[in-house]
Amino acid sequence: MEIAQELAQVLIDGKWQNADVESTFHAENPATGETLPRAFPVSTWSDCDRALAAASKAAVELRGVTPDKIASFLEAYAFRLESATTELVAAAHEETALPISPRLKDVELPRTTNQLRQAATAVREESWKRATLDLERNIRSYFAPIGPVIVFGPNNFPFAFNGISGGDFAAAIAAGNPVIAKAHPLHPNTSRLLAEQALKAAEETGFPTRAVQLIYAISNENGLRLVSEPRVGAVGFTGSKNAGLHLKRAAEEAGKPIYLEMSSINPVIFLPGALAEEEERLARELVDSCLAGAGQFCTSPNLVVLWDGPVAESFLNSVAIAFRERPTQSLLSFAGRKQLHAGVTALVDASAELVTGGKPADGAGARYQNTLLRTTGKQFLSRPHDLQREVFGNVTMAVTVRNVEELQSMLEHLEGNLTGTIYSSKTGTDNETYSVIEPLLRPKVGRLLNDKMPTGVAVSPAMNHGGPFPATSHPGFTSVGIPSALTRFAVLQSYDGVREDRLPPILRNTISNPATWRSIDGAWVKG
Amino acid sequence: MEIAQELAQVLIDGKWQNADVESTFHAENPATGETLPRAFPVSTWSDCDRALAAASKAAVELRGVTPDKIASFLEAYAFRLESATTELVAAAHEETALPISPRLKDVELPRTTNQLRQAATAVREESWKRATLDLERNIRSYFAPIGPVIVFGPNNFPFAFNGISGGDFAAAIAAGNPVIAKAHPLHPNTSRLLAEQALKAAEETGFPTRAVQLIYAISNENGLRLVSEPRVGAVGFTGSKNAGLHLKRAAEEAGKPIYLEMSSINPVIFLPGALAEEEERLARELVDSCLAGAGQFCTSPNLVVLWDGPVAESFLNSVAIAFRERPTQSLLSFAGRKQLHAGVTALVDASAELVTGGKPADGAGARYQNTLLRTTGKQFLSRPHDLQREVFGNVTMAVTVRNVEELQSMLEHLEGNLTGTIYSSKTGTDNETYSVIEPLLRPKVGRLLNDKMPTGVAVSPAMNHGGPFPATSHPGFTSVGIPSALTRFAVLQSYDGVREDRLPPILRNTISNPATWRSIDGAWVKG
Repeated sequence: MEIAQELAQVLIDGKWQNADVESTFHAENPATGETLPRAFPVSTWSDCDRALAAASKAAVELRGVTPDKIASFLEAYAFRLESATTELVAAAHEETALPISPRLKDVELPRTTNQLRQAATAVREESWKRATLDLERNIRSYFAPIGPVIVFGPNNFPFAFNGISGGDFAAAIAAGNPVIAKAHPLHPNTSRLLAEQALKAAEETGFPTRAVQLIYAISNENGLRLVSEPRVGAVGFTGSKNAGLHLKRAAEEAGKPIYLEMSSINPVIFLPGALAEEEERLARELVDSCLAGAGQFCTSPNLVVLWDGPVAESFLNSVAIAFRERPTQSLLSFAGRKQLHAGVTALVDASAELVTGGKPADGAGARYQNTLLRTTGKQFLSRPHDLQREVFGNVTMAVTVRNVEELQSMLEHLEGNLTGTIYSSKTGTDNETYSVIEPLLRPKVGRLLNDKMPTGVAVSPAMNHGGPFPATSHPGFTSVGIPSALTRFAVLQSYDGVREDRLPPILRNTISNPATWRSIDGAWVKG
Repeated sequence: MEIAQELAQVLIDGKWQNADVESTFHAENPATGETLPRAFPVSTWSDCDRALAAASKAAVELRGVTPDKIASFLEAYAFRLESATTELVAAAHEETALPISPRLKDVELPRTTNQLRQAATAVREESWKRATLDLERNIRSYFAPIGPVIVFGPNNFPFAFNGISGGDFAAAIAAGNPVIAKAHPLHPNTSRLLAEQALKAAEETGFPTRAVQLIYAISNENGLRLVSEPRVGAVGFTGSKNAGLHLKRAAEEAGKPIYLEMSSINPVIFLPGALAEEEERLARELVDSCLAGAGQFCTSPNLVVLWDGPVAESFLNSVAIAFRERPTQSLLSFAGRKQLHAGVTALVDASAELVTGGKPADGAGARYQNTLLRTTGKQFLSRPHDLQREVFGNVTMAVTVRNVEELQSMLEHLEGNLTGTIYSSKTGTDNETYSVIEPLLRPKVGRLLNDKMPTGVAVSPAMNHGGPFPATSHPGFTSVGIPSALTRFAVLQSYDGVREDRLPPILRNTISNPATWRSIDGAWVKG
């Protein structure tokens, strides 16, 4: 196969430029195994250094940029992404094998532009800055930009979590910071096309162009150096626990806030009354959720709890049948399929029983059989750590428990998760059990759900896409939800006795923005 | 000298009990050098383990405790501290040499009880939980308790920052968590007396007694183990950078949020116009601030910047005279005096010139001469790291700069600080300089002041007693200020589609508390 010699450029300091190249790499089409033609650079430290220098300048420039201009940039970018839909979804499909429709075109890209627009609204409103005025003492505080933010996007959302267009990008920019995006090496071309639109949107709105930068890949060593650099304000990372923990250590050693989303098995508990009432519908709902995006969602249910007995058997039988019947779809990469298989093997080694699947699937691409495993509460309790391993893909494991005490013990051994779900009877027959297990599940998860699957993550101000370690690195923050996600990329700044004409406009006695909520002497006041 | 054999007990699981003793220690009266009679235990891991087990139970119990009961405990504790004033201030004076009046009796203890009462008010109001309701999507979130909090108090505020009575204690309890306090070994008896009142206040208000626990000392190894224990929710630490960084690494490795306040030199910049107008008053203000509490405040000005020239010379001359004339007071310990002297020596070795002081002072106790050093901007820039060393005590260093560019360079080399202060002309002659240096100083400090010294830290909702690393471990949080300090000890919890009768009361459609501010569909609503 002929490989084109063209090497993609990196976006540094407001310009597409030749990378300082350590080596090059090609993405792969996971649906075909074909190596994609364009070569991408693995940058040396020199590129990181240039990007940091530009980001530092951008951080200073951004202090003089009005909220309206930041919002205009975000909106222009959203509009441009819509205009470029055809090209973007084709590129993302080629690199990820995710379906063009509905997934990329009708769900993920609209979600991405919606996030950018919600961020723009938050920027204009300014309430996210949580301006707090103590008029009597003349002490005032608010959240101000933290400085250059490094964003590492994950493999599974080429738009909505991409370092150059996703939730962390929108939040960091909305909070007034420049972003250096590190593309995920599984979709460099998608990232490049997004960055092209970002640069054009910056140019056409007069937003500092060096505030949006993109590099494709760096060595692990340079990654650790990058997150601990003095010029960095903060880091956002979504990805594997292994990579995340290395970056966490490096950033924290240097005193840099780093927000990581790393792993989650998202337990779904079906209480007996719920299954008795709606066994068939719930089986379908579970299958839909487990197989959405080939199970490659951060909130995909990896652990399903059922009450031991004939209803559970019948339910699991339905799920197994559906798993066998539903078509497989390609995973994001062949490497991911290998890891997934290693995960299934590890669960089996840890005593889980394979109900269906467990092998690479027929058909083109990185397909894996829809895989259902099962074990008992007793087994789970004998190896709680090994049996709550995240397996990223179209795999789930059911656990049958004999009684509520067994479930209580399981929950006591549960590690931190993004979500936890309880399905219960509509007539109240599960209420007593609910009241016993909820207090054990609640502290282990960032979001608690009733009677619905966790795979939908609405961009709501009340959303928490976060949770206790090791799901994330800090249980007090969410990476989805506007304006809440913005404060991750902000610092608290207090003004004590500062003369009024020297205060940031939002902290003065009267402000011109009628939409801004501020806390004045203990009361929230608008405008 | 005869040493009493009585060994103090630790407060674990709601009871005063014998410690599991690794070794024992005695505090010292720093004003006399005398070893104090009561022996205190250095606990083994077994005590930590028992305290953690009790704290875990307390965390569960606290979920069933109403805000009103938590508030009542805090208020009863505040009242008890007032009733026990005579005994408390005598003990603190004996262990710290801080003056009984006004410092301990009229300033620090009232501040402590004020903090406890402000925390009680915040608990009753519940607005700190930042309840957020998205009614259309039925997603709701709020801040919930994080679990057992370990508090390490510093040496310099035996009441107001004590692990068992200070700001971190008040914030952690107010957020609904149990506290395990690690007393500072320089004032164990004061901590013991405070804990006696805490236990009695818990008993008389029906607050879970095991939610307030006290140990006096543990090995460094057990300290690291304690902060990284699975049963721990979070850690609060105020103290030295060296100890803090070790605890930080251990806690973060285990994924535990840790909030540290470590070091700060609190630059105070006198612009030329300010000195020209009020040289004498400002010299007095600076001297008062530098020598308050023998300079042992986290916000004590360690670095003073002046414009090179005759006014600076005259100003420094006034300061030097005052430093020589003002009586010295004992430092908190002889060990502290040794460290302070080592710090002065290090500054001199780094090219600072000693103007006055620089030696242990005459008189009883751990006194050190009020010490003024000076250097130039040029020298500072040649060794910026060595010359911004925090020296904890009655020592300050002046830097004379030749022009605004030199000051700009200095500020670019400034590390993270709690505070930064600019004095400027009242008639506007310094405004241009202010506008050039403020953007450089602002991102380096948590609190920016105009025309007043940083040593006062008001307990205001708009206060930021925090700042960029290495002043603290996270620039988004404050350790002083209610309710803002509470969220450090809270986790974000979201409820998605949860049936209304299962929601925490504060997240239901209607609530009974008329004082609570909630964010409902983007608007702040009270009650």
